[in-house]
Amino acid sequence: MPYIRESIITTVDLVGKVHIAPIGIIAEADGWVIAPFRPSVTLDNLTAVPFAVASYTDDVRIFAGSLTGRRDWPLAPVEDCPVPRLEAALAHSVLKVETVSDDPVRPRHFCRVLGQGTHAPFTGFNRAKAAVLELAILVSRLHMLSREKIEAEIGYLTIAIEKTAGPEEREAWGWLMESVTKHLAGEEHGKPASS
Amino acid sequence: MPYIRESIITTVDLVGKVHIAPIGIIAEADGWVIAPFRPSVTLDNLTAVPFAVASYTDDVRIFAGSLTGRRDWPLAPVEDCPVPRLEAALAHSVLKVETVSDDPVRPRHFCRVLGQGTHAPFTGFNRAKAAVLELAILVSRLHMLSREKIEAEIGYLTIAIEKTAGPEEREAWGWLMESVTKHLAGEEHGKPASS
Repeated sequence: MPYIRESIITTVDLVGKVHIAPIGIIAEADGWVIAPFRPSVTLDNLTAVPFAVASYTDDVRIFAGSLTGRRDWPLAPVEDCPVPRLEAALAHSVLKVETVSDDPVRPRHFCRVLGQGTHAPFTGFNRAKAAVLELAILVSRLHMLSREKIEAEIGYLTIAIEKTAGPEEREAWGWLMESVTKHLAGEEHGKPASS
Repeated sequence: MPYIRESIITTVDLVGKVHIAPIGIIAEADGWVIAPFRPSVTLDNLTAVPFAVASYTDDVRIFAGSLTGRRDWPLAPVEDCPVPRLEAALAHSVLKVETVSDDPVRPRHFCRVLGQGTHAPFTGFNRAKAAVLELAILVSRLHMLSREKIEAEIGYLTIAIEKTAGPEEREAWGWLMESVTKHLAGEEHGKPASS
């Protein structure tokens, strides 16, 4: 399987309304593939305006927030590009859609990199940030997983949170855990599981 | 517990010989604590020359390599500092030891940040990089863990490697897995477990 960068993808619709979504972009040849789910705002936007900005941020609240109804993160304009970046981006790439391979689930948009920018230094990996990202992925797949699997993964990820998190990571973790708790409570009451 | 940055710490001895070690530096007040194990070259060096450079790199081969006998990574000079940084640092901090709290296991060196530099853009999180870091931590603690725990963690971490690794992450993972395999084989033959 190819290399995947976890990024926050911004896109715009025809009137310039911005949408942000956490998406893993996939390395391919000299570009990157964005494969948004069908249906999704990112897919509609890329079809209308074939540009995206990949923001590389280490603020994991933005990943956790985007999955839990907190999508209002500050943006910053990007020169010569119709799409803004996240203000919190340490760096970004401007991506232009060149070809689309249709797919019933995730149409693959192959993008070329038109430009890049660096805004702030990387300050090192942090195990709690990685644990928040893993929990975010878990939250996006709750409806496919058993309670045992969910609880075992959270037990494992909690170790890094307890040992290495700062306030931002704890906040992001808390938002995601609310979703988990709600999901598991729903299951107990016999409601259909959903994410 | 406070925030911890995973970094590669460079230090020098009195004749300028450089030592590199992967160390999680601990946030404290307006500085960072380096707590090297006793005995260690990093501890000796900090005692002799009370400066360190924290290199923030996303090349996980350097973390995995430092644990598996591959310590010869290219360095670059840092202005007004007796200690070099990693060439592969996306950014670095120059740290000066201000106070030491002695400890029988890990003396805590409180450091102030004297300077910082940015060298290359962050290109986004990658789940496989995080999995390599977690395996590196596991490898450093093999002698404390049961075979079942080791195998369960590796099974979990392997998922991110299979789904998101590039060639560098696969190489780093391979180095660490050699250590795990050797450790488990040693255990089978009744040798004392060691890391």
